[in-house]
Amino acid sequence: MSNLETVAQVGENEALKRTIARLNASEHALVGPGDDSAVIAAPDGRFTVTTDTLIEGHDFRLDWSTAYDLGWKAVASNLADVAAMGAVPTALVVALTVPGSTQVSWLEHFADGLKAACIALAPGCGVVGGDLAASDQVMISVAAHGSLEGREPVLRSGAQVGDVVAVAGTLGRAAAGLALLQSGNRDAVSAYDELVNVQRRPNPPIRSGVDAANAGATSMLDLSDGLARDSARIAKASEVTIQIDPQMLQGFEAVIEEAARAIEANPSDWVIGGGEDHSLLATFPADATLPRAFKRIGVVLPQGPAPVMLGAQALPERGWDSSRATNYLA
Amino acid sequence: MSNLETVAQVGENEALKRTIARLNASEHALVGPGDDSAVIAAPDGRFTVTTDTLIEGHDFRLDWSTAYDLGWKAVASNLADVAAMGAVPTALVVALTVPGSTQVSWLEHFADGLKAACIALAPGCGVVGGDLAASDQVMISVAAHGSLEGREPVLRSGAQVGDVVAVAGTLGRAAAGLALLQSGNRDAVSAYDELVNVQRRPNPPIRSGVDAANAGATSMLDLSDGLARDSARIAKASEVTIQIDPQMLQGFEAVIEEAARAIEANPSDWVIGGGEDHSLLATFPADATLPRAFKRIGVVLPQGPAPVMLGAQALPERGWDSSRATNYLA
Repeated sequence: MSNLETVAQVGENEALKRTIARLNASEHALVGPGDDSAVIAAPDGRFTVTTDTLIEGHDFRLDWSTAYDLGWKAVASNLADVAAMGAVPTALVVALTVPGSTQVSWLEHFADGLKAACIALAPGCGVVGGDLAASDQVMISVAAHGSLEGREPVLRSGAQVGDVVAVAGTLGRAAAGLALLQSGNRDAVSAYDELVNVQRRPNPPIRSGVDAANAGATSMLDLSDGLARDSARIAKASEVTIQIDPQMLQGFEAVIEEAARAIEANPSDWVIGGGEDHSLLATFPADATLPRAFKRIGVVLPQGPAPVMLGAQALPERGWDSSRATNYLA
Repeated sequence: MSNLETVAQVGENEALKRTIARLNASEHALVGPGDDSAVIAAPDGRFTVTTDTLIEGHDFRLDWSTAYDLGWKAVASNLADVAAMGAVPTALVVALTVPGSTQVSWLEHFADGLKAACIALAPGCGVVGGDLAASDQVMISVAAHGSLEGREPVLRSGAQVGDVVAVAGTLGRAAAGLALLQSGNRDAVSAYDELVNVQRRPNPPIRSGVDAANAGATSMLDLSDGLARDSARIAKASEVTIQIDPQMLQGFEAVIEEAARAIEANPSDWVIGGGEDHSLLATFPADATLPRAFKRIGVVLPQGPAPVMLGAQALPERGWDSSRATNYLA
């Protein structure tokens, strides 16, 4: 049968079978896809689990992202939530809904994106189960699992006064990429395609989550909603104030400044408010040796009137609330 | 703030927080909702995971099911996939998409349905994480986890020639309920509301999954797509033929016969082809003592030309393929 066939033509079960056939196996699966449930190893007697959903028109546009991009992004954004606990990703389950008119080849490219992201970001991790159903909108819901390998999970609530605040990964690049796409300025999109690509296929520092845990990180989270909102989450959970040093953000701004100028945007807004880089924000004891990927950006202060300060100023919690955001809608 | 407010008004994070606040805790959660991932106990060093999605207009209609019904059904259908491995359900993550105009009170009733189903069907199990996002359609995607408690998982592939084939739970009642709703015959819907309620809030025999494993079940699955299709899955995976004795289905037909007459339907079609009862189909060695909930319906034969026989006749694989089905669309 040809791949120009649609899901409605071949049926859900057959389409799902062909999609799963393209995936890499999880090295942690004792029973893989095909039964009522998969069975996954959890050697230290615990597992971590998180879920995140991407919705057409809301989190992505089909004219801006390929099926491959979406498979990649769905994996990357979920793996970041595994890494943020200090866990190693082991297994994913993926629920996908697509219109019945979707070609099976689209599903196969989606599967290729899932596989590529697993191999690049978390070798050994793979998709162990899935569900495919017809709908009006494309919707991708992933549940991701991890192994703590005997370590304590790194929570949002453990930041201590005097800790260093540090980031692994990029800040503002995914927001820059989105703004470039939204600008409709084709020259700018093509000149800064590496930023657009961070938006399409984010590259979170998954391994750095374990490095942070091993270095004694006291708190950590995945920067999905932007530095301002996500720092406030750690600050509130830990009952502290996080003070970010604006000078330490200059390096992050410098690399997106030129793109910002091209579309008359403010690079500092992207660095502070932009989501979807899926970098890791963590706090470490002042005397800890930061893992190589982490850059210091601030300190933890006793709880003050604002959860987050940028220098001497309270930082409003601007950023991303995905149910209100209409960022992707034309 | 009032619950007449909508998701768009209060924002995703606040709406999610209020929804999660109504849920029961999982007794197996070491870290519950609110961090990047939850942490769940897996005492025997393994866990089972499955995912299943319900989509508005496809798997349910909002005028036929309440938010509470949908929360219940999403849990019940996923727990059946845990039970079918011989596992005890431990933890769920739930991804929900709703239009921004949805009232927060709808989400709260949905949460009440999730909680009630967990408590009724799998005490100790609870929701440990969730995701809420805006979309055009209501979509509910659940990933469910279980503990095998040291037992071997019961796969689809283990049926042996000479085994007894048996069912725990109802057959055809959910299909009868759907047909009643589709008939538009209000008198019939009200006269046979217990069948309509199986469709709205299925009551799968979750505990019987462990009982079957302990009794030596050689294969098992969740009857989500109907006896014909699902028996064929065991037959193919096990490379055997399953022979169902039509006389042994008479008891299942008897209880829906009157409802079938009321809307001029064939009860035998519901018993053989109807999905969504989420009963358990299992095979046992001939000398095994069947657990109390299981009723014998057939035997396992050497692989013949058809995967499933009804008496002396090959049984076509009619049933449910949810991507083709338009059963819920008016």
